[in-house]
Amino acid sequence: MGTTPTHVADLAAAMDRALTLAARGPAHGPNPRVGCVLLAPQRPGDVARRVIGEGWHRGAGTDHAEVAALADARERGNDPRAATAVVTLEPCDHTGRTGPCARALLDAAVAEVVYALDDPGQASGGGAQTLRAHGVLVSGGLRAAASLDLVRAWRHALRAARPYVTLKLATTLDGRVAAPDGTSRWITGPAARAHAHAVRATVDAIAVTTGTALADDPALTARTPDGALAGHQPLRVVVGHRDLPPGARLHGPGGQVVRLRTHDAATVLAALHEREVRHLLVEGGPALATALLAAGVVDEVHAYLAPVLLGAGPSAVAPFGVTTLSGAPRWRTVSVQRLGDDALLVARAEPTEPVDPTEPAHVSEPAHPTDPAHTTGKEH
Amino acid sequence: MGTTPTHVADLAAAMDRALTLAARGPAHGPNPRVGCVLLAPQRPGDVARRVIGEGWHRGAGTDHAEVAALADARERGNDPRAATAVVTLEPCDHTGRTGPCARALLDAAVAEVVYALDDPGQASGGGAQTLRAHGVLVSGGLRAAASLDLVRAWRHALRAARPYVTLKLATTLDGRVAAPDGTSRWITGPAARAHAHAVRATVDAIAVTTGTALADDPALTARTPDGALAGHQPLRVVVGHRDLPPGARLHGPGGQVVRLRTHDAATVLAALHEREVRHLLVEGGPALATALLAAGVVDEVHAYLAPVLLGAGPSAVAPFGVTTLSGAPRWRTVSVQRLGDDALLVARAEPTEPVDPTEPAHVSEPAHPTDPAHTTGKEH
Repeated sequence: MGTTPTHVADLAAAMDRALTLAARGPAHGPNPRVGCVLLAPQRPGDVARRVIGEGWHRGAGTDHAEVAALADARERGNDPRAATAVVTLEPCDHTGRTGPCARALLDAAVAEVVYALDDPGQASGGGAQTLRAHGVLVSGGLRAAASLDLVRAWRHALRAARPYVTLKLATTLDGRVAAPDGTSRWITGPAARAHAHAVRATVDAIAVTTGTALADDPALTARTPDGALAGHQPLRVVVGHRDLPPGARLHGPGGQVVRLRTHDAATVLAALHEREVRHLLVEGGPALATALLAAGVVDEVHAYLAPVLLGAGPSAVAPFGVTTLSGAPRWRTVSVQRLGDDALLVARAEPTEPVDPTEPAHVSEPAHPTDPAHTTGKEH
Repeated sequence: MGTTPTHVADLAAAMDRALTLAARGPAHGPNPRVGCVLLAPQRPGDVARRVIGEGWHRGAGTDHAEVAALADARERGNDPRAATAVVTLEPCDHTGRTGPCARALLDAAVAEVVYALDDPGQASGGGAQTLRAHGVLVSGGLRAAASLDLVRAWRHALRAARPYVTLKLATTLDGRVAAPDGTSRWITGPAARAHAHAVRATVDAIAVTTGTALADDPALTARTPDGALAGHQPLRVVVGHRDLPPGARLHGPGGQVVRLRTHDAATVLAALHEREVRHLLVEGGPALATALLAAGVVDEVHAYLAPVLLGAGPSAVAPFGVTTLSGAPRWRTVSVQRLGDDALLVARAEPTEPVDPTEPAHVSEPAHPTDPAHTTGKEH
């Protein structure tokens, strides 16, 4: 199969479609968002390659994107043999709750697989190698950055064996989270609060300290702008030793409440990793933020800033051991936006392995057959 | 003269041109930025009214915009009689360093004056009344908000009899201006610092405390991105009792250094008002910011925020008496922008007299002649 300019344009269009499909999946949950488009083999005279099947992953326990796309092709009466599978993540190569996607693609006799992002899972990775070993043309890297945007927390959690940690700060311009008398409602305005609720609906868990739970009595629910509970409710994690009063709003409708009677950041993250939490949103208080900062595990910062000055009152962050400016953690700004009268700055830690967004797909020759990789372990 | 739709469109176009001209004047200095366009009388068959003269104010001691426009018309051989003067600010009505503009317009026998914003000066205002008293058709309010953007500090200073105060904060996301060991270079990045230098070039004075002058040894110059001194250098105001060392950078090239050996905000502002400072930029330290906040005289906040957390170190603002959130000063956000990795939030105090940006020009009938207003006092 030739890699003609038309072919490359077809692949790029198919990958964009696969990314769109992937985004329909849930941002939360133990599995990544993946989309797949199957292209019919190139025939002489075709202006563009025909899409014969599409699929995306709808959450743990449902079909992976490749399997969904193959099923879609068959339902439409299309033959996937010799097709090109365009998929936003390297096909997995292990049996978890469902079978390995690499095997499903081999069984369907596709000729080529083009994927965006490598699968980082120690258990689930290696699909590309297995496919190549069976003579399939495999290439990766096309739209890798866009795919990473869809699976950042999942990918980070699998690589680091802990949840991706987003620290939310909602402060005055001088970094205060409350006035000296403890009043804190509301520092930020309705647009910022609505945005924060939308973020809650995308994460697996929200954590606060018992101090915050007792002081603010938060519900920690994800709500839509009209006040209704969002369809997905993250776990509500309360960190610390004190008990919550029986009437606490945390006992009301919302996600499951998880009590972690510790102040140790590593213990908190290990317990949540065990529960397959990929993305943890930390909303306070300062003690928890500080413990995570001291441990160097804050992967993303969402700073909501209101045009208010207090001059006194608790800071968003307590001392965590920084003595000089060059020793302070600094994140890379992703976006700055206005939300009503407030600003939101989103910043991330340096990626440990940068993804080059400009890298074109490199269509490799099939490798010489070798032993297929065998993997075990949990499904990604 | 009929107020036909064509006429209104001509006036709007002329006012936009006058605003463009006004913006060529200096943002700093004791006088406002004003532009003026002279339109020939409407003749039968004209598609649009012809511009016969243009002018703008170039700074204290030079012609006011109306006089400049009349001179321009005469240089071009155009007769200003029966013309319409479209001007961004109500013509002044007093004799200062130059003669009153209302008189110049009457001497030129213009038929109509359309202005954007009322002149708030107790001495200089009243031009509209004088013109009407002499039978000139006068209207105000067209593009008033755009004119206000050009003269905000000047107008506020004349109304409040003190400089317009902009407080600059350059902090971490937790409101720190330095680490515990005092290191503070650089919290914000080069784009934010370049922006701050551009702001310096638009103000009349920059103030810091002796504490900041001794700790940071700032030059307080306005510099262009290539490091050269900008054409305008604001006064460099040092507030406090301690002496500066002979080698301080404040003794180097730049604006005049003004020492104010006080810690009282009102005294500082009165001394600068006396020097015709309209716009004061306060760059630190926390003690001066705090004194101004306590006095309730911070008219605008420029918060540069870097994606860094320190957890300790001096705050941008020290306690200034706020105990509860509802008692905290809150500004109205004007803009939020990204500058490199940093965010800039600009916010202003509520205007004491809102200007309706949608108000159309109301073309009034000439009033019955009355005694012309007589005014004295300093030129605006």
